[in-house]
Amino acid sequence: MKIGILTSGGDCPGLNAVIRGAVLKGVRTHDFEFIGIRNGWRGLVQNEFMPLDRHSVRGLSRQGGTILGSSRTNPFEGENGGPENIQRTLDANGIDAVIAIGGEGTLTAAHRLTEAGLNIVGVPKTIDNDLEATDYSFGFNTAVEIATEAIDRLRTTAESHGRCMVVEVMGRHVGWIALHSGMAGGAHAILIPEQPKSIEQICDWVEHVRDRGRAPVIVVSEGFLLSGMQEAHSTKGLDAFHRPRLGGISEIIAPLIEERTGIESRATVLGHTQRGGAPSAYDRVLATRLGMAAVDAIHNSQWGSMVSLRGTEIDVVSIASATIGLKRVSPARYDEAAVLFG
Amino acid sequence: MKIGILTSGGDCPGLNAVIRGAVLKGVRTHDFEFIGIRNGWRGLVQNEFMPLDRHSVRGLSRQGGTILGSSRTNPFEGENGGPENIQRTLDANGIDAVIAIGGEGTLTAAHRLTEAGLNIVGVPKTIDNDLEATDYSFGFNTAVEIATEAIDRLRTTAESHGRCMVVEVMGRHVGWIALHSGMAGGAHAILIPEQPKSIEQICDWVEHVRDRGRAPVIVVSEGFLLSGMQEAHSTKGLDAFHRPRLGGISEIIAPLIEERTGIESRATVLGHTQRGGAPSAYDRVLATRLGMAAVDAIHNSQWGSMVSLRGTEIDVVSIASATIGLKRVSPARYDEAAVLFG
Amino acid sequence: MKIGILTSGGDCPGLNAVIRGAVLKGVRTHDFEFIGIRNGWRGLVQNEFMPLDRHSVRGLSRQGGTILGSSRTNPFEGENGGPENIQRTLDANGIDAVIAIGGEGTLTAAHRLTEAGLNIVGVPKTIDNDLEATDYSFGFNTAVEIATEAIDRLRTTAESHGRCMVVEVMGRHVGWIALHSGMAGGAHAILIPEQPKSIEQICDWVEHVRDRGRAPVIVVSEGFLLSGMQEAHSTKGLDAFHRPRLGGISEIIAPLIEERTGIESRATVLGHTQRGGAPSAYDRVLATRLGMAAVDAIHNSQWGSMVSLRGTEIDVVSIASATIGLKRVSPARYDEAAVLFG
Amino acid sequence: MKIGILTSGGDCPGLNAVIRGAVLKGVRTHDFEFIGIRNGWRGLVQNEFMPLDRHSVRGLSRQGGTILGSSRTNPFEGENGGPENIQRTLDANGIDAVIAIGGEGTLTAAHRLTEAGLNIVGVPKTIDNDLEATDYSFGFNTAVEIATEAIDRLRTTAESHGRCMVVEVMGRHVGWIALHSGMAGGAHAILIPEQPKSIEQICDWVEHVRDRGRAPVIVVSEGFLLSGMQEAHSTKGLDAFHRPRLGGISEIIAPLIEERTGIESRATVLGHTQRGGAPSAYDRVLATRLGMAAVDAIHNSQWGSMVSLRGTEIDVVSIASATIGLKRVSPARYDEAAVLFG
Repeated sequence: MKIGILTSGGDCPGLNAVIRGAVLKGVRTHDFEFIGIRNGWRGLVQNEFMPLDRHSVRGLSRQGGTILGSSRTNPFEGENGGPENIQRTLDANGIDAVIAIGGEGTLTAAHRLTEAGLNIVGVPKTIDNDLEATDYSFGFNTAVEIATEAIDRLRTTAESHGRCMVVEVMGRHVGWIALHSGMAGGAHAILIPEQPKSIEQICDWVEHVRDRGRAPVIVVSEGFLLSGMQEAHSTKGLDAFHRPRLGGISEIIAPLIEERTGIESRATVLGHTQRGGAPSAYDRVLATRLGMAAVDAIHNSQWGSMVSLRGTEIDVVSIASATIGLKRVSPARYDEAAVLFG
Repeated sequence: MKIGILTSGGDCPGLNAVIRGAVLKGVRTHDFEFIGIRNGWRGLVQNEFMPLDRHSVRGLSRQGGTILGSSRTNPFEGENGGPENIQRTLDANGIDAVIAIGGEGTLTAAHRLTEAGLNIVGVPKTIDNDLEATDYSFGFNTAVEIATEAIDRLRTTAESHGRCMVVEVMGRHVGWIALHSGMAGGAHAILIPEQPKSIEQICDWVEHVRDRGRAPVIVVSEGFLLSGMQEAHSTKGLDAFHRPRLGGISEIIAPLIEERTGIESRATVLGHTQRGGAPSAYDRVLATRLGMAAVDAIHNSQWGSMVSLRGTEIDVVSIASATIGLKRVSPARYDEAAVLFG
Repeated sequence: MKIGILTSGGDCPGLNAVIRGAVLKGVRTHDFEFIGIRNGWRGLVQNEFMPLDRHSVRGLSRQGGTILGSSRTNPFEGENGGPENIQRTLDANGIDAVIAIGGEGTLTAAHRLTEAGLNIVGVPKTIDNDLEATDYSFGFNTAVEIATEAIDRLRTTAESHGRCMVVEVMGRHVGWIALHSGMAGGAHAILIPEQPKSIEQICDWVEHVRDRGRAPVIVVSEGFLLSGMQEAHSTKGLDAFHRPRLGGISEIIAPLIEERTGIESRATVLGHTQRGGAPSAYDRVLATRLGMAAVDAIHNSQWGSMVSLRGTEIDVVSIASATIGLKRVSPARYDEAAVLFG
Repeated sequence: MKIGILTSGGDCPGLNAVIRGAVLKGVRTHDFEFIGIRNGWRGLVQNEFMPLDRHSVRGLSRQGGTILGSSRTNPFEGENGGPENIQRTLDANGIDAVIAIGGEGTLTAAHRLTEAGLNIVGVPKTIDNDLEATDYSFGFNTAVEIATEAIDRLRTTAESHGRCMVVEVMGRHVGWIALHSGMAGGAHAILIPEQPKSIEQICDWVEHVRDRGRAPVIVVSEGFLLSGMQEAHSTKGLDAFHRPRLGGISEIIAPLIEERTGIESRATVLGHTQRGGAPSAYDRVLATRLGMAAVDAIHNSQWGSMVSLRGTEIDVVSIASATIGLKRVSPARYDEAAVLFG
C-alpha cells in the first residue's frame, strides 16, 4: 500500500513529527510505502511529489516546520482540482490513501473529498487549538510556552518602568493561547475573542493593579474585539482604512490605556515566533502518536476519520465531528481565569 | 474560614503555583484566610507555621520549589503525631481545613487523617506521574521537557563520536518520564521499570542502530531492571554492596553495552535537574487550576477528596481512588513507543 | 561610607546583577553601606530612596529588570535638578558617592555632575552595545540570544511556506544586535543603520537565495535606513506622517520585497522581549564583575570613571572616553558578515 | 586550492559553525574547494574523506556536534601515521592545506606536523576554555549557559528541602566553567583545580550559608582536589581502587559535607549535557568568525598559525603560543569570585 502525506495551512511545530511517526510506523508495522505530496493540496492539484522513505524522516521529531512544504490551496479550485482530477492524480502515482494534516479548512476539504470517495485520513493541526473533537492539537503547547516566556520577559520591563505591557498572542477566532499563556504568565487581564470587553473594564483592571503598586501585564488574542469598539476607535480618529496599518489590536489598546489611565503603556505583537521552530517535548509526543495512529486508521480503512487526543489516549473520530464549529473558550474556563485578574 | 497549606515529599515544579492559585482564589472568591504549614507534615507535628497572605504569593506561578519548605515526615510518627495531636494543633492555630499537596505517601497519610475526622483536601504532586485518578500531575511536563532537551544535546555528541549514549531519567517505579522524553527525543530504546529487558535485547537494538550508520541513544528510568540481572551483574563481579556505589542503572548498562557490542558507551544521570526550577507553562496552568479547585473543594466540604485532571477539565475524586496503586505505563503504551526502537 | 545606586534609562537584563555585585562586594570588603535611589535620576531630584542591604539583593543575579526602578529623567531639569540641589539631597541623606548605571544619556549626565564636584562612578548599560570604551555591555548578549532564538523559529516557517521573513531587532543607531543575531541565525542579509542599502540590493540578495531553492531570512535593525528611501516610500505613497503608524522598518521592507520579487514576505518586530527577563549567564557574570569593580573604583575615589570590559578583564576608564560618540559597527565587521549574504 | 578540514577531540558546540564559516568564506572569496577529513586525524591516517561543498554546510551554524565526526587518534601513531605518510595521503587526495579544529592535543600535533612541513592552520576548540592565546574558545559559552541553567534549577530544590547541593561541572585541569557558571548561578562556593581547599573550609562556607537561613549551592570542577584528600578519603575508607567507581568528585564531597555539618547534601554531575547540542548565539558567532579567519590564514600561507579571539577581534597567533601550557584561572579571578562565597 502506498500512502501520500500532505501538510496544509499555516506552519505549526510538530508537522515533521507527525510525518516521521506515520512513516516509521507504516514501514515497520504495515509494510506501507510513502510518498510526500508537496505544498499541501497544491501538490495533488499540480502533481508535485517528493520521495518519503525511512531515511528522509531521520531526526524530524525535533525539527520545526514541514519538509513537505505547505500552502493554502483549495483542492476544489483550479482546472485540475476537484475529487475526480485528484483521484486521477492519485491513481497515476499509485497512491492508495492520503494522510491530510491540517486545520479546519484542510479537514473540511478532506471531508468533502472522502464523501466523493477518496481515501483520506485527517490529522488535526492548529496552533490556536480551535478544532473540536480533540483535547489539544500539536503546536498549541509550543505556542503557549513561547508566549509565556515572552510574557515573563516583558513583565520585568513593566516592573522596572512602572509601565503597562499589552502582549498580543495568536488566536484569530479563539482565545486558547491567550488563556493559557496569560494564566501561566500571571497576567492581570486576559482578553479573548469569545469575551468582548470595554476599554473601561480593561482600564479598571489596569488601575486596580497600579493601585496595588504593581505593573499591569495584559495578554490579548489577536482576534479580541473591544466592546463599543466603534466609539473607542473614533476617539483616536481611526477608521476601517487605517485599522490594518496599525498592526494588531494591542496597538489599539495600549494607547487607549495610556490615554485614559495615564500609565505609560506599550504593545508587543509576538507574531510568527509562536508558530515556528522546534516543538516542545509535549508536542513531539502528541504529534508522533497522531502520525502513528493515522497509519493505523488507514490500515483499518477508516476513511473520513481523524485521529485525536482524548485524555491520555489517541482516539479515532470522524472528521465531520471536528469541523462542525470552532472549539471556543467556555465561559466557565474564562471565569476560572478571571478570578486572577486585576 | 482559615486554611492551612502544606507541601510534602520531593521538590516538584509547580508547587508554588498551586499555593498561589489556592490563596488568590480563596481570598477573592470565598474570603478565606490562609496560613502556611512549614516543611510538610512536620509543620503540623512540630507547630511550625508562616504567614500566607495575598502579598506573599506574588510572582509565585513561575517560581520553582516551594516557599513553604518540604520534608518526608510521617504525620503518624513522633510524640506529637497522629490525628488527635494534629487536630489539636490545628485547633490551637484556628485552622479549619488543610490543603495537602504531595505524592502517594502524603496522600495516603492525608486519607488516613480524613478518616479520623480531619478536614483535608489533597492535590496530587509527582514528577513521576505515578498517581492514579489524574491524567497528569504538575511537574511531570517540566521534567519531560528538561529530559528531552538533555537528550537532544547528548545525541549530537553521540553522533560526533559514533558512541552509544545511555541517558538515565527519573522514575523509580514507573517509566512515564522515560517514555515521553524518549519518544520526544527520538530514542532508539526506552527502558522502564514496567518492562524488564535483557542485556541481549538492548544490545540487539544498539547494534541495529549502529548497522544503519547511526549513534544509539538509550533512555532508561532509574528504576529499570535488567532481566537476568544477577547474571549480568556477575559478569562484572558486581554485588549488592557495590551496587549503590556505582550510581544509577545507566552506569551498569553502558559498560555492558560497550563490552558486548564494542561500541563506546557513556552514561549520563540527569538527576535532580529534572525536579527543580521554573515550571513549564503547561505545569503552571495545571498547578494554578488545581490550587483553585482545591479551595472550591474545601468550600464544598469535600473532605478526603483530591483534585485531578481529566482531559481538559479539573475534576474532584476521592484520595482513595488515587492511592490504590501506582499508575504504570500500560503494555499498549510501551508497544506504541517500541515501534520506533532500534 | 554610604553609597547610593541608581539605574537609569531603558530596561536591560543584568541591572539587578550589578546592584547585587556592588552591594555584596561593598559590604564584605569595604564595609560600605548602601541605599537605593528610586527611578534613576528622578530619585535624586525628588528625594526617593529605598533600603538596600545585603538581604535585599538576595537572588538578584538571575532576576531581570531593576528593583530600583528606572526612568529617563534628566538630572539637570526641574526645580530640584542640577548639581547643587543634587549634592544637597545627597548630603541630607548622608550619601558619600553614587554608582550610576546607565547608557549614553545617563553617563553624559554623570560626567557633567562629576565635573561639578559630585562623587560618581559610572557603569555602562546598553542593550544596543553602542557605548565606546567597553568591549561589550551587559544585556547585549541576552538580547542577541533572544533574537537568535526567534530567528531560528522564524526560519522554519519561512522554509515551510517558501516565504521571505524580515526580522526586526533592536538597534536605533547601531547594528550590533542585528550583526550578531543575524550571523548566529544564518541570515541571508543583515541591514544596519551604519550601512544604508537600496531596496534593489536587498531584492538581489532575496532573489539569489530563492534561486538556490531556499527561503530568505533578513535581519534588520530598527534604525536601518533604505537608501533612496524617499523614492521607495513614494512607490507605496508613504510620507512622514504615515511612517510611525506603519510600525517598524521591517513593515516597510517586507511589502516592498514582496512587490518587487513576488516572494511572499512577512515582517516580525521582536520588540521589548529583547530587553526583559532573566539575563544570560554571560551577562550575569559581566554585570556582577562590573558592579564589584564599581565599588572598588569608589573605594579608590575614581570619580568620573566608568568600569568597562577589555578582553577578559574589567578595566576602569573615564566616563568621557565612553561618551565621545557611539560605538558603531565598523565596515570591516560588516564586510566580514556580508560574505555570508545572499 | 583544495582545503581539508578535520575536527578532533571531544565534542563541542560550534564545530559545525566553524566548518560552515570556513567553507562559505573559502568558496565565495577565495574560490577554494573543500574536502571533509573523517574522524579527526584518523581520516588522514586511514584515508577517510567525505565531500564538503557549499550545499553540505547548509544550516550548520545552529547544529551541535560535527558532521565530520571526531576521534582522539594521534597522527604520529600507527603504520600510516607521521608527517611523511600524512603528506602522501594529502598529495594523493590533492589536498593543499588542512584546517585542524581541536584542543591542546590536536593543536600540539598540528604544530609538530607544520614543523615537518605540512600546511596546517589551527582553530582552538575547548569546552574547558583552557587554551592560551585566545580570550575564549567556542563551546565554553554554551557550556556555561547550560551549567548555569542547571544550577538555577537545583537551587530551588535546595531551598525547598534546606539541602546543600553540590553541582559538578566540566573542567579536568582548569576551573573556568565552574568559575563562570558558579558566579552566574550565585553559588556559595566555587571549587576549582587551581585552588585546592580543605573539607573544613568547604564546611565553613556551607555552615555560614545555613546560618543565614539559606540552602548552600556549591559548584565544583570535575578536576578539583580536596586538600588533605588522602585523610579525607580515609575517613570514608576510600582508596585508589574505589575512587573511579564513586563517580565524580561531587559524590565524594557531598557525603563529607553531610557527615560533618549534618546538612542533607546531594551531588549532581552534569556530565556530557554540557558539550552537546545547539551552540549559543555567542558561540555561533565566534565559531563562524574563526572558521572564516582560518581560511584567510590559509590564503596568506600562515602555516603553523592559529586563529584566536582578542577582545572583539579575531587575531592570528602561532599555534605554539597557544600550547605552551594550560590557561588557568588566575588567583585574582578566583579572589574576585570568592568575595561572594559563604
